[in-house]
This record gives sequence, C-alpha cells and structure tokens, in this order.
Amino acid sequence: MAYRLFIANKNYSSWSMRPWVLLRALQIPFEEVLTPFDGAGSQQAFTHFSPTAKVPCLHDGERVVWDSLAILEYVAEDHATTWPGDRAARAWARCASAEMHSGFAALRDECSMNCALSIDLGTPSEALEKDLTRLDLLWQEGLDTFGGPWLAGDAFTAVDAMFAPVAVRIRGYGIKLGATAMTYNERLLAHPSVADWIEQGVAEPWVDEPHEADCIRGRRIIADRRRQA
Amino acid sequence: MAYRLFIANKNYSSWSMRPWVLLRALQIPFEEVLTPFDGAGSQQAFTHFSPTAKVPCLHDGERVVWDSLAILEYVAEDHATTWPGDRAARAWARCASAEMHSGFAALRDECSMNCALSIDLGTPSEALEKDLTRLDLLWQEGLDTFGGPWLAGDAFTAVDAMFAPVAVRIRGYGIKLGATAMTYNERLLAHPSVADWIEQGVAEPWVDEPHEADCIRGRRIIADRRRQA
Ligand SMILES: N[C@@H](CCC(=O)N[C@@H](CS)C(=O)NCC(=O)O)C(=O)O
Ligand SMILES: N[C@@H](CCC(=O)N[C@@H](CS)C(=O)NCC(=O)O)C(=O)O
Repeated sequence: MAYRLFIANKNYSSWSMRPWVLLRALQIPFEEVLTPFDGAGSQQAFTHFSPTAKVPCLHDGERVVWDSLAILEYVAEDHATTWPGDRAARAWARCASAEMHSGFAALRDECSMNCALSIDLGTPSEALEKDLTRLDLLWQEGLDTFGGPWLAGDAFTAVDAMFAPVAVRIRGYGIKLGATAMTYNERLLAHPSVADWIEQGVAEPWVDEPHEADCIRGRRIIADRRRQA
Repeated sequence: MAYRLFIANKNYSSWSMRPWVLLRALQIPFEEVLTPFDGAGSQQAFTHFSPTAKVPCLHDGERVVWDSLAILEYVAEDHATTWPGDRAARAWARCASAEMHSGFAALRDECSMNCALSIDLGTPSEALEKDLTRLDLLWQEGLDTFGGPWLAGDAFTAVDAMFAPVAVRIRGYGIKLGATAMTYNERLLAHPSVADWIEQGVAEPWVDEPHEADCIRGRRIIADRRRQA
C-alpha cells in the first residue's frame, strides 16, 4: 500500500505543508494529489477526498486519515523516526506540535501564509505579540534542552515540520525573534524539503483572491517573488 | 514515577476533563491537583505548573506534558489501551480526536461547558448548526464502522474521553442530534468516570463569573443543579 497525500496550493496551504515536508524530509514515498483552492472559499472539491472538506488528507489504501496531526501519528506507526527516539524529547515534540495545532491563533489569523510575498507587518497586535513571545520561548526551550540543531534534538522530526509554515511567515512578514530562534528559522527555511515546497509554491500559476486579501489586509507588499505573467 | 494531573474547576474546564476521564476510565493511578479559575480570566496561578498557563498539564516526575492531546499520546506510550488496538479504529480515533482538538469552534465558543446548568439554547447560529451536523455524522460513522458501543469499538478509549465535554454540552443546552448519536451521548454521560467528574463539578463551591456569563449570554437558565448556599 502506498500513501496518497491530498493537499491544496503550496503557496497558501500551511496545514498541507506540514505532513508533506515531513514525508519528504524522511524520504517516505507518497503520491501527491493537489487540488487548488477554488477562489470562492467554498472548497466543494475537497469533499471528494476528505470528510471535513479540508486539507491535508492522507489515503492509505481504504484508510482515510484527515487532519495534519493525526497524519503525523499515523505515519509514526509506520516510520519510527517521525518523532524523536528519546522519550523526553518525544513528549516535548508532541506538546509543541499540539500547541501549534490548537494555538497560535493570532499568528495564523493575522499572518496568513504566502510563500511568494514579503509584506510589511506594521505594528503587531497585542495578541500577535503574545504569540511571538511564546514562540520564541518555546523554540529556545527545545533547542536548549535537546541540543539542536533541530527543535527536539539532532534529527529533523515531526515537530520541525509542524513549525515549517511558521518559518515562512516569520520571513514573509519580516518578524524579529531572538537570535537563537532566528538562526533556527533560517535553518528550517534552508532544509531541502522546506525549500522545495516554497519553491514549488512560488512557481504555482494560481492566484487565490481570498488568500491574497487575507495576507495583505491593507498592508504594504514589499516584494512578490512570483513570475508575473 | 506517578502522574500528577493539573486541572481547573470540574464544573467548567472542558479540556481538563478529557485526560482525567481517560485516566479514571482506564483505572490508571494519578494524583489530581486542582487550581480553580481566579474569576478574573488571567490564570496567573497556572503559570506555576504549565508553560502555556493553561490546563490540563501532566507532570510525570521531571517531565511536563502540557496540552490535552499530547497528554493522551504520552499516556498511550505507558498504557496500550489508551487507543483502540485495531489499526483502522486507532487511525479513525486519532483523526476524530484531532478534529475535536482544533475544530468545533462554534460548539466550543457558543456552548461553553457548565456541568451544573441547563440552558435554553435558543436558535443555534449557522456555524453551530454546521458543527452539530458534522458531529452527528462523525459519531454515526464511528459507531457504524466499528460496531460500538463506544466511538471506536467495544472499548472506551481516548476518543470517547475527547468527546466527554461535548456530551455535557449536548445535555446542558438541550441540543438534539440523530437517534444513534443521542443514544451514544446518554451512554457517555452514564460512564462512571464521566458521571463522577460531572457530580464533582456540580458539587464545587466556586462560581466563576466570566464562565457563567459565557454560558448564559442572555439565554434563559432552565435549571441550576448546584446546591444554593
Ligand atoms: N485541523 C486541520 C486544519 C486543516 C485546515 O484548516 N486546512 C485548510 C487549508 S490550510 C483548509 O482546508 N481550508 C478549507 C476550508 O476550511 O474550507 C489540520 O490540522 O489538518
Ligand atoms: N489546546 C489546549 C487547550 C487548553 C485550554 O484552553 N484550557 C483552558 C481551560 S479548559 C484554559 O486553561 N484557559 C485558561 C486561559 O486560557 O487563560 C489543550 O488541548 O490542552
């Protein structure tokens, strides 16, 4: 049986990015099935492969695994290197991943992912400041406790994949974190699997208006890396 | 080493309820440490045991496991019956749990948990209707596919614990689902571990104004099961 991973536009779909980056980083074979957002925000097409009409969704033969975090746990049962081998590191990695999964709402809402754009963030809201302070502390804790260079130790694992879209946002909106976190952010962006996703996202032909509007929100675009048609 | 589970008021804290119910249902020993909400919505006291200042948080010796879902996965490494034994049922259970963890926003926002109150829901919002339609379908799917009486088969597992606070809300706000889902809802409320939590919640001496206001939102209280002082 082979994995089929259903995703949306690489340029915008932060949740799709997470399992894709993990599978690629661990060199786990899978077939990618990309369905672009329909520009209307309805995503009727997603109902054909996902019970929640959301991406990502993994099919493994008959089995349908919806939700990014559940996909990571599913893959972990087949591939032990998904999570760190050390119990303490693994527990920490799962906590940080679960916190990302249900939290960082301001970062997700106010800094929608867009691989192609550099945007002037302007003055961050109080809620966003709070998220960034927490993010800085969390990354610092992981790197200090488990010795780096990845969040939970010397191997790239699922928790790094969970934060890959955050790295895109940090760079795209010109967000400044502490030195340790900024170094990790650059490292994450340079990981071949992360860099590959971003490059493919930027090269996509689709421009989805609801997503573009959500990223810009009246803010100034500094650069657009897409090739203009 | 023994588990110490940090929770807040049983009457209100839906996230605390999940791991507590699971540990009790599987008869896994743990020490409960309850810190009531401070009535001001700030939760300064939670910073003493949790890096996010949220409950639940599990301590296992030196190890700090914050976030409900990460706690369930942590416990699962020590206790195999946390998730269903069958791979397909386990994958489904994790998907449903992850969907609860990051979704059902309208149900969580508009029907804040309160073990003691029966409230007239009034006309549900469109978003809440959507959540309830999805919930009905999800429960039905689990019960049909794995044969019941629990969501993912014949054993009470983590996915049932994840939906225990939903059962409290369904009853408390007088919400109607389909027959299969309603029967499951009653079964869940009658589970000794769930019933015990609710009873202890109703018996608590604290009344937290921000939580009460959030439950009532100008709606009519039908019954208050707390003993009035
Ligand atoms: N909790 C889900 C979130 C998935 C999600 O929100 N995906 C977005 C795209 S990044 C989506 O499919 N949106 C379409 C919609 O909500 O209609 C997960 O972790 O997989
Ligand atoms: N994603 C977290 C959510 C935890 C959560 O929001 N807990 C609430 C109580 S039920 C809390 O601690 N609120 C206090 C606050 O946000 O200040 C989990 O699954 O554990």
